[in-house]
Amino acid sequence: MTDVYTLGAALGVVASGRIRHDSEARLDVCGPEFTLAVGLARLGHSVAYLGKVGADELGSRILSVLRGEGVDIADLRVDEHAITGLLVKESRVGYPVLTSYYHAGSAGSRLTPGHVPIDRIGAARMLHLTGLSAALGPEVLEAMRAAVTAARNAEVMVSFSVTYRPELWASVREAEKVLGEFALASHLLFVNQDELDLVKPALTGEREVVVNRGAKGASVRADRIRYDVPMVQVPVVDVAGAEEAFCAGYISGALDGLTPSERLRRATHLAAAATTAASEWQALPARADLRRFSPQKPL
Amino acid sequence: MTDVYTLGAALGVVASGRIRHDSEARLDVCGPEFTLAVGLARLGHSVAYLGKVGADELGSRILSVLRGEGVDIADLRVDEHAITGLLVKESRVGYPVLTSYYHAGSAGSRLTPGHVPIDRIGAARMLHLTGLSAALGPEVLEAMRAAVTAARNAEVMVSFSVTYRPELWASVREAEKVLGEFALASHLLFVNQDELDLVKPALTGEREVVVNRGAKGASVRADRIRYDVPMVQVPVVDVAGAEEAFCAGYISGALDGLTPSERLRRATHLAAAATTAASEWQALPARADLRRFSPQKPL
Amino acid sequence: MTDVYTLGAALGVVASGRIRHDSEARLDVCGPEFTLAVGLARLGHSVAYLGKVGADELGSRILSVLRGEGVDIADLRVDEHAITGLLVKESRVGYPVLTSYYHAGSAGSRLTPGHVPIDRIGAARMLHLTGLSAALGPEVLEAMRAAVTAARNAEVMVSFSVTYRPELWASVREAEKVLGEFALASHLLFVNQDELDLVKPALTGEREVVVNRGAKGASVRADRIRYDVPMVQVPVVDVAGAEEAFCAGYISGALDGLTPSERLRRATHLAAAATTAASEWQALPARADLRRFSPQKPL
Amino acid sequence: MTDVYTLGAALGVVASGRIRHDSEARLDVCGPEFTLAVGLARLGHSVAYLGKVGADELGSRILSVLRGEGVDIADLRVDEHAITGLLVKESRVGYPVLTSYYHAGSAGSRLTPGHVPIDRIGAARMLHLTGLSAALGPEVLEAMRAAVTAARNAEVMVSFSVTYRPELWASVREAEKVLGEFALASHLLFVNQDELDLVKPALTGEREVVVNRGAKGASVRADRIRYDVPMVQVPVVDVAGAEEAFCAGYISGALDGLTPSERLRRATHLAAAATTAASEWQALPARADLRRFSPQKPL
Amino acid sequence: MTDVYTLGAALGVVASGRIRHDSEARLDVCGPEFTLAVGLARLGHSVAYLGKVGADELGSRILSVLRGEGVDIADLRVDEHAITGLLVKESRVGYPVLTSYYHAGSAGSRLTPGHVPIDRIGAARMLHLTGLSAALGPEVLEAMRAAVTAARNAEVMVSFSVTYRPELWASVREAEKVLGEFALASHLLFVNQDELDLVKPALTGEREVVVNRGAKGASVRADRIRYDVPMVQVPVVDVAGAEEAFCAGYISGALDGLTPSERLRRATHLAAAATTAASEWQALPARADLRRFSPQKPL
Amino acid sequence: MTDVYTLGAALGVVASGRIRHDSEARLDVCGPEFTLAVGLARLGHSVAYLGKVGADELGSRILSVLRGEGVDIADLRVDEHAITGLLVKESRVGYPVLTSYYHAGSAGSRLTPGHVPIDRIGAARMLHLTGLSAALGPEVLEAMRAAVTAARNAEVMVSFSVTYRPELWASVREAEKVLGEFALASHLLFVNQDELDLVKPALTGEREVVVNRGAKGASVRADRIRYDVPMVQVPVVDVAGAEEAFCAGYISGALDGLTPSERLRRATHLAAAATTAASEWQALPARADLRRFSPQKPL
Repeated sequence: MTDVYTLGAALGVVASGRIRHDSEARLDVCGPEFTLAVGLARLGHSVAYLGKVGADELGSRILSVLRGEGVDIADLRVDEHAITGLLVKESRVGYPVLTSYYHAGSAGSRLTPGHVPIDRIGAARMLHLTGLSAALGPEVLEAMRAAVTAARNAEVMVSFSVTYRPELWASVREAEKVLGEFALASHLLFVNQDELDLVKPALTGEREVVVNRGAKGASVRADRIRYDVPMVQVPVVDVAGAEEAFCAGYISGALDGLTPSERLRRATHLAAAATTAASEWQALPARADLRRFSPQKPL
Repeated sequence: MTDVYTLGAALGVVASGRIRHDSEARLDVCGPEFTLAVGLARLGHSVAYLGKVGADELGSRILSVLRGEGVDIADLRVDEHAITGLLVKESRVGYPVLTSYYHAGSAGSRLTPGHVPIDRIGAARMLHLTGLSAALGPEVLEAMRAAVTAARNAEVMVSFSVTYRPELWASVREAEKVLGEFALASHLLFVNQDELDLVKPALTGEREVVVNRGAKGASVRADRIRYDVPMVQVPVVDVAGAEEAFCAGYISGALDGLTPSERLRRATHLAAAATTAASEWQALPARADLRRFSPQKPL
Repeated sequence: MTDVYTLGAALGVVASGRIRHDSEARLDVCGPEFTLAVGLARLGHSVAYLGKVGADELGSRILSVLRGEGVDIADLRVDEHAITGLLVKESRVGYPVLTSYYHAGSAGSRLTPGHVPIDRIGAARMLHLTGLSAALGPEVLEAMRAAVTAARNAEVMVSFSVTYRPELWASVREAEKVLGEFALASHLLFVNQDELDLVKPALTGEREVVVNRGAKGASVRADRIRYDVPMVQVPVVDVAGAEEAFCAGYISGALDGLTPSERLRRATHLAAAATTAASEWQALPARADLRRFSPQKPL
Repeated sequence: MTDVYTLGAALGVVASGRIRHDSEARLDVCGPEFTLAVGLARLGHSVAYLGKVGADELGSRILSVLRGEGVDIADLRVDEHAITGLLVKESRVGYPVLTSYYHAGSAGSRLTPGHVPIDRIGAARMLHLTGLSAALGPEVLEAMRAAVTAARNAEVMVSFSVTYRPELWASVREAEKVLGEFALASHLLFVNQDELDLVKPALTGEREVVVNRGAKGASVRADRIRYDVPMVQVPVVDVAGAEEAFCAGYISGALDGLTPSERLRRATHLAAAATTAASEWQALPARADLRRFSPQKPL
Repeated sequence: MTDVYTLGAALGVVASGRIRHDSEARLDVCGPEFTLAVGLARLGHSVAYLGKVGADELGSRILSVLRGEGVDIADLRVDEHAITGLLVKESRVGYPVLTSYYHAGSAGSRLTPGHVPIDRIGAARMLHLTGLSAALGPEVLEAMRAAVTAARNAEVMVSFSVTYRPELWASVREAEKVLGEFALASHLLFVNQDELDLVKPALTGEREVVVNRGAKGASVRADRIRYDVPMVQVPVVDVAGAEEAFCAGYISGALDGLTPSERLRRATHLAAAATTAASEWQALPARADLRRFSPQKPL
Repeated sequence: MTDVYTLGAALGVVASGRIRHDSEARLDVCGPEFTLAVGLARLGHSVAYLGKVGADELGSRILSVLRGEGVDIADLRVDEHAITGLLVKESRVGYPVLTSYYHAGSAGSRLTPGHVPIDRIGAARMLHLTGLSAALGPEVLEAMRAAVTAARNAEVMVSFSVTYRPELWASVREAEKVLGEFALASHLLFVNQDELDLVKPALTGEREVVVNRGAKGASVRADRIRYDVPMVQVPVVDVAGAEEAFCAGYISGALDGLTPSERLRRATHLAAAATTAASEWQALPARADLRRFSPQKPL
């Protein structure tokens, strides 16, 4: 049985410290649902990933990484007529990360409701979606809606991570409308401190709302009680990937039947681990690492 | 006075030996007209470049490289509403180079006839265009047509390099139609051995037709006489850029009043030099290098 | 149904150009059967791999690469009490490759006959073994013997690649004895030019004997006719991996029902491809690459 | 009209973490006035640079970087008879930076008063000089004196940065004499905390004295009022370049008509930015970066 | 006259940040006594090293580094029948360092009492041993015992550093027995905070006991008075090597006749310096560096 | 007893493929006599090196490399008042290597006759000098003359390698005068094909004249008979160092009592080996490598 079913766009990523000057860049693959899937698989959960990649080498890389990590990719599609999307990212010290999404016409943006397997979602314990993928085009958005319908019809828990990326939306208004819709449809909602306004109507007691405050820690309101944990201190290499690593940790804790505080601690562990490497997913812990984590500074 | 006026799309380029496995890639900027402009500027010719880049770091890099090399970029536009195009390239030994062009909606594809400065083109000695840019979208194509009209009206010499990239065209037929149109409009035509069929109607005595046969050398038919030179032997790192470096060398020779054979020799020198480095343009020679070139294997 | 079942030791590998001076080395995983399995899987064949790795990061890497490439690792064991073996390799230009095998007590050397699944081997189309693994210790040797017995009892074709490594054997005599035993038990025998003496008694018409002559090409004697193909010319980066890539190509051709000459051509294609990269397996072609191979020097 | 005219020596720089052991070093170009010029040009000010480089590749690199960044190099000279100077620098954690200046006989040390364009300096809004260049030889020193005379005669503001490098001076006494002379001739004086004694006579109310206290912040006394700002906290990669980046920020603020406190804030922004990269100048902000700066630690 | 005589195993070391993903690793040589010997030699003390390496390139590297650093290697043996031992090390941020020792059958583990030069040890001022080497096999252990006997017979001071590595011992009990034996035989004992229980019987006033508390500082009890120093704060790259660098600093201070507090300060200086680089020994200071150390954060 | 005594300047070297663009360079140490000394020491000959380095990290690196390789550096001086010389080198494919020597005022150029140990030279079997060092300044030149006098007075064989570097000489005439003087004083003369004119008067039967023709092989005239060997074919990475490696091989053969043809073969082996790596000396063979050399292309 699948623990978590997720769908969205996986991309190539080219990361540079200074695009203007550097002649070497880091080449990797990424995506919020990709990170979530790897994070859960490494902790031993069964997780299935639906998406579309091009019939190119970036697509092959996405396939083999997911398969190598033990993610179920039976539903993943290869699109012969489109290339795999790409993200170019500059992480300059002292300035916000700059991103350029090359997703227009990409394979990932061509996922349609027709690709969504109603039965497989209905047989999973949880469906997880992110707001980033909702911004990649109308087809993906419809596919996500189809997945939510399938999940709710089968009484499968719906988890949604807001992951608002302003550069991908035509207007804040539109983002608010779409993100709010998914937030309201969710049972478990992940939202960053600065995204709270976008999904205000969903911040009610009907759902488990997990707030990621970054360096200031995280909290969850469950059964009317608020639980808080501080952020784990580690030397940060690159923050990308931390958001969905956080979700993976929280969901893993939930699947393992941990208490809300324990879920948050696992969430912050994974979020912190994700930031210790340039890759968005390679530093994620294996299950054996869960009890080996010792984020204090050495010597 | 401008010796050569050129227009087209400059792109970022991410080059990898094996996209499926490598975590490091080469980051650079490129474009056929970009290479041509740098090649001519390094040899001391005045060259102006028209194109459009995004208001991002790849765009800034294109600007500062061109300016640093002494190319006149007074007409270059920065588009606040689009990102700079990108090329992902895999050069695997033993297999053809794989390319993915991320140009849909890019700044470079949004150059329009309105950006084309009729007077500046009319005041140049030569206009140079390439078939690659003609495939980037209808607006660029119209801009190129406007430039040709401006040049021919002012009796400015028109140079055209076919640079056929099958992956950028909907069909061979369409490529044939557009490339043929520019070939017929040109006074100086650069064509690769395997592109001859595409521009057959233009292969007449009315124009100077330069045929690049790659490893088999190059030839030109001028005033009804055919001149031939062998290719220069160098250890090849990456062939990309060789085509337009070849054009730059030939045009430089023409501007310097060299004989057809001498033009071809300079063309093959630049083409060979371009292939000795991973970058498409960094290995291009300065004028002082022209007489220092000694491509024999050392020791 | 499994096309090919193989077993042996997979190792970490640390490769350096000059161990005495270099502070950077290449870290990868390798093994002759590992290479064979990846080579076959990339061409679309179903292949199962049996071996033992340590409960360490090198072991995890072996697992995820094999799984990512689509190799069936259901039988692969993780040994909690031993570390994954390691190979240190210096490839200095102009001198033979120097190797140090750190396999004493390694997980890979602790594979025993008890791990060999009689039924799964009996259900495969072919069993492939190599002489390198036979030298790693008495337990592996017995496991290999058990596998041969299982195969022959079930009338499964046995393929054997001699891969003689002098540094792993106590004496030539011993190597001759053991390698000869497997050669005689095989239906398909891969032998290098300089290994012919070691397996002389097996060089009879009873089996398909494929001789790899390296730069001088390869030949096979099948049904009393000798077929010869020249070696493919490519720029060589590292010859390691070429032997088993050759076997993978030949076996793939056999599984596809190709003629002996075509099998040899696919074998030399894979062998050449394997040498174009530092990794022993990463440069192996996908099925789509089979018809894209064009080993001529570019430009 | 030129906002700032500066002159001095630009050098190649080879930077290593451990010269004794490392086989890779960072190759770049540098110079205090070089950094100042780039810093101002990136913020949109017009800045002209006078210096001398050799007819070698390091010289070409200096030329193309300055041109690429938009610095006016119309007066920059190429010396056919001398090589471009070089700085070798070791930045070992926990120990002071070690520097070796290879400037004896270099092109940069051969700048003479005859190269100084009286009229162009007279037409600028400000002349900026540094004490480092004053130590490179008697000819440069005389050229600097000629520039100061030209500026004062034309009532152009003179800015001077002490930048005392003990290893370049024969004695403290001599440094004191020369640096004091320029300090007294300046209207705007930049001095580090530990250089105050060297220019004591100039620390009067007649001029704007900006004191850089490094990690302890910076202050300026203007119109008898002292303004203080703390240093900006960023992860430091290499402090080199921070001094002149600081000057560039302060001067930019002055040119923009900012208040003394705002000038200091821009100065500390640029100083902090300069230290976040290995290069002395590549991390300097563009004008658009001024309001994007957010030096707090991420996550 | 030899100041310090030491013996033990020197190894190759392959260090990676993430073995599972990285294709580049750091290649170096190491060993606790190796680090100690280099640390003392750089400070001008005469130090002799006894050990055994293989007749391979790792062995040659160990030889030439030690010779190059001025360590007396007259007694060092090259074993024609065994390979040099190897350590594979993963230093992942936030998790304890993972190590795999490939020492089974290695040259270093084949040092026997017969190789121990009684007279040379008797002529030294001090003998230094470590608990790590005691775990490499029965022969090394016997050689260490022979060395202690030789030293005590000649009234040479015996120094012992506990350096407990759990992965190298069959049980804590056995470690306790062996380490306790050497601790009791020593005049100078180095012990980490978390090793105190292992050598409890030796923590008496009879010997100088130096306790390394890592980030919490260090202390020594000498002549019944306890001296304490805080740890030096530096940006840590890799803690490996810090333990023996600490010993080298303390012993150097003792040889120079410094007070206990000064010895501890030199010990913490060397320990801190060792952690500032990836190599275990390359960042160790030369004597001239002793007074240049300024571990405060720059800018 | 010392087999070979040599003296000259050792330098740091910064090597780049493209100084204009590359941000990474190779950092190493070099010098013709340095290469010769390492080459001979690796083959087991006793060799002493006299020179002067600065009290800086490049100087320390030269010291520790020579000591590590087993070269006798008892006479090597550290100059507290000058920095170690430096060579910047660009090896661009297709163009001659560009070099800039930063030796003005360097420690190496300050070697004087007073440093030359008459007795130690008198006790050696051979003195080896090079023309490169003769161009570094009048003091080094005088020191070389003193060494020659000491050798001839003690009937020690004098070996001289012309190593003409045009950029280091004021005129060909001056080079001819000085190089000719040493050539005439030598018993063994190494000269490149294109240097023959410079030392014409010395090309007589009185001395053993070895002519290095690079890719065309080498020859020697000994006892009126001419011996010729072809050059060894290897993939060339960097030709620098080949000249003195050639001398080291020839002299080693002479010291071993080989025939002229065998000496040439060892010379070409070392020359070829030196060119297979970027370093001028690291690829030199150990004695055990002499019979392992197999320069044929692999696979």
